[in-house]
Amino acid sequence: MHYPFIVEKLIKHLHKLPGVGRRTAERYAFDLLLDWSQEELLEFQKILTDLKITIGECRTCGCITDHNSCVICDDLMRKQDLLCIVSSAREVFSIESTQEFRGLYHVLGGLLSPLDGRGEEVLGIDALKERLSKNSIKEVILALDSTVEGDATSLFLREELKAFPVAVTRLAFGIPVGSSLEYVDGGTLARAFSGRNSL
Amino acid sequence: MHYPFIVEKLIKHLHKLPGVGRRTAERYAFDLLLDWSQEELLEFQKILTDLKITIGECRTCGCITDHNSCVICDDLMRKQDLLCIVSSAREVFSIESTQEFRGLYHVLGGLLSPLDGRGEEVLGIDALKERLSKNSIKEVILALDSTVEGDATSLFLREELKAFPVAVTRLAFGIPVGSSLEYVDGGTLARAFSGRNSL
Repeated sequence: MHYPFIVEKLIKHLHKLPGVGRRTAERYAFDLLLDWSQEELLEFQKILTDLKITIGECRTCGCITDHNSCVICDDLMRKQDLLCIVSSAREVFSIESTQEFRGLYHVLGGLLSPLDGRGEEVLGIDALKERLSKNSIKEVILALDSTVEGDATSLFLREELKAFPVAVTRLAFGIPVGSSLEYVDGGTLARAFSGRNSL
Repeated sequence: MHYPFIVEKLIKHLHKLPGVGRRTAERYAFDLLLDWSQEELLEFQKILTDLKITIGECRTCGCITDHNSCVICDDLMRKQDLLCIVSSAREVFSIESTQEFRGLYHVLGGLLSPLDGRGEEVLGIDALKERLSKNSIKEVILALDSTVEGDATSLFLREELKAFPVAVTRLAFGIPVGSSLEYVDGGTLARAFSGRNSL
């Protein structure tokens, strides 16, 4: 038995969300159809309509904002000489939630991925270089994924930033806090060994 | 750091979907914002706008349909004397996917739940009774959840349907196919014992 046409279209759209399989998409679709009020649905669709119109990129760092610049770039209490480079605005919020970092951010347009045909043009490196030449930044922290793409991008940035008088660092790799050695994979263990600290 | 207002509203809406926690809602929100094109978002919001306008209930069985009656009620090849009672249109699609049942359906408005203040008025029992009195139905199969609410509703319907010349049956309870006895809970095991079949 087929779903009515519009329900099938709804399922297909929900199926595009990250980690949502066909069954979960069906579950969400029935919830929207049977359990949400028409007011809730209209409010939800209004948000979707306005989303990309309301939210843009901070013209300084590239993070999402509903103003010209974001709250982090506007915050003069933050360390102006410390710059954390991330690949997406998502990570700004992850890092902020730790309350560990008090510097500024720079959001790249993505990560290098030769296999997917994503070269250096996705990074938006010119904006980064311009920012580094116009501001007195002392340290650039690369907070990129521990993947082939993240590694490639980190190496590329290290070379590109050699021309600037900044220290370039990358986040530490090692054993995740709270995890048992037994369950840590070999690659992580090897990085934890090579990066061991004196006690 | 707070999310921009509209992103926070989007997260709150996505958080209402079944089984979606705050973190998953944030993940979906960033996907919609950063990875969906404006065209995809507009198509999605159009579906949400049209959803409840396009989809109504089949006037015979109460299942969802984009016509006056549903494809099952319109299918005269199905057994017209066998009626399966479910609590929501979701279950019609689950049961149909097994291709085991070839009768008709009747969708209740919900299940009895005295704790949540849901009494017999939610069931829409008058429509069911009218259907039984106007059609020559021989067997009514109660395909309701194996929960307190499902049990209460089954018992209530059994009493209510005594006035009609129909056999009332309920789905079998027992060990799920493919599962190991070790992992089956006590309640299920007890029902499997009391419902044992001669071999």
